[in-house]
Amino acid sequence: MPKLYWEDFAPGSVAEYGPRQVTREEIIAFAAEFDPQSFHLDEDAARSSMFGGLAASGWHSCSLLMRIIADGFVIDSSSMGSPGVDEVKWRAPVRPADRLRVRATVLESRPSHSRREMGLVKFLFEMFNQADVAVMSLRMTSMFGRRMPAASQAAPAHADAQ
Amino acid sequence: MPKLYWEDFAPGSVAEYGPRQVTREEIIAFAAEFDPQSFHLDEDAARSSMFGGLAASGWHSCSLLMRIIADGFVIDSSSMGSPGVDEVKWRAPVRPADRLRVRATVLESRPSHSRREMGLVKFLFEMFNQADVAVMSLRMTSMFGRRMPAASQAAPAHADAQ
Repeated sequence: MPKLYWEDFAPGSVAEYGPRQVTREEIIAFAAEFDPQSFHLDEDAARSSMFGGLAASGWHSCSLLMRIIADGFVIDSSSMGSPGVDEVKWRAPVRPADRLRVRATVLESRPSHSRREMGLVKFLFEMFNQADVAVMSLRMTSMFGRRMPAASQAAPAHADAQ
Repeated sequence: MPKLYWEDFAPGSVAEYGPRQVTREEIIAFAAEFDPQSFHLDEDAARSSMFGGLAASGWHSCSLLMRIIADGFVIDSSSMGSPGVDEVKWRAPVRPADRLRVRATVLESRPSHSRREMGLVKFLFEMFNQADVAVMSLRMTSMFGRRMPAASQAAPAHADAQ
């Protein structure tokens, strides 16, 4: 049974998850599979790039954030996935051996109009390295099952028409 | 030497890249590493979820899109990375054995104000499966080196002040 339902994500609430360390080998392996640009793959090429050294693919950063929040709370929740992301900002390079943590802020929460058993939560996720540098921020909406579906709540019979 | 520079991405131009097939094993391996929610990992759990069957993590879809455009043009370009993404929409599940292709539309192009050797391009990327279902769309800005840096162009001496 999930521990966290839609009702548990109160607007304004803040939580931190992680840290998770990323290795040079993981950065290179991700790049080789998904983003084989030289500054993600090769230390020498990266040194002469605008990154000044090996830097993780931005999609690797997103994937690491997902793993940190999955371990942090998503796996223990009634997660029903996500319709998408409003914004990703890659603010600073993620480097080999970085220890990453994620601050999750609940920006908004609303019940689903179309599905009574579901609610939507808009999060701001900010990822920091061990030096407290913000390496990425990401605003996204997630869908969660409700502990108490709308139909079971005390409400006037015409509530759906409102 | 890169084949494509900032000047080569004309607003309104459209190109298609791919296809690339994704396997069940890849979907599960990505989920195990980055997004271990049951509907991305386990066929039985996925069947009773809102996905109705195993579905790739949305971050896996993003990473696959990156690989398709990397092979398609980014590796042959003067890519200087990206500051971020304006929007990701996960429109339909990506399934085992899907053959994915990407349509890239150049939405906007502008020179960098701060770096004469660089220009920015805003893309709309749409990813389709073998049934021509749009599984994802993504708007993002990429940075490219210029073939002819601004300083070398014929321009009045006071151009920078304008």
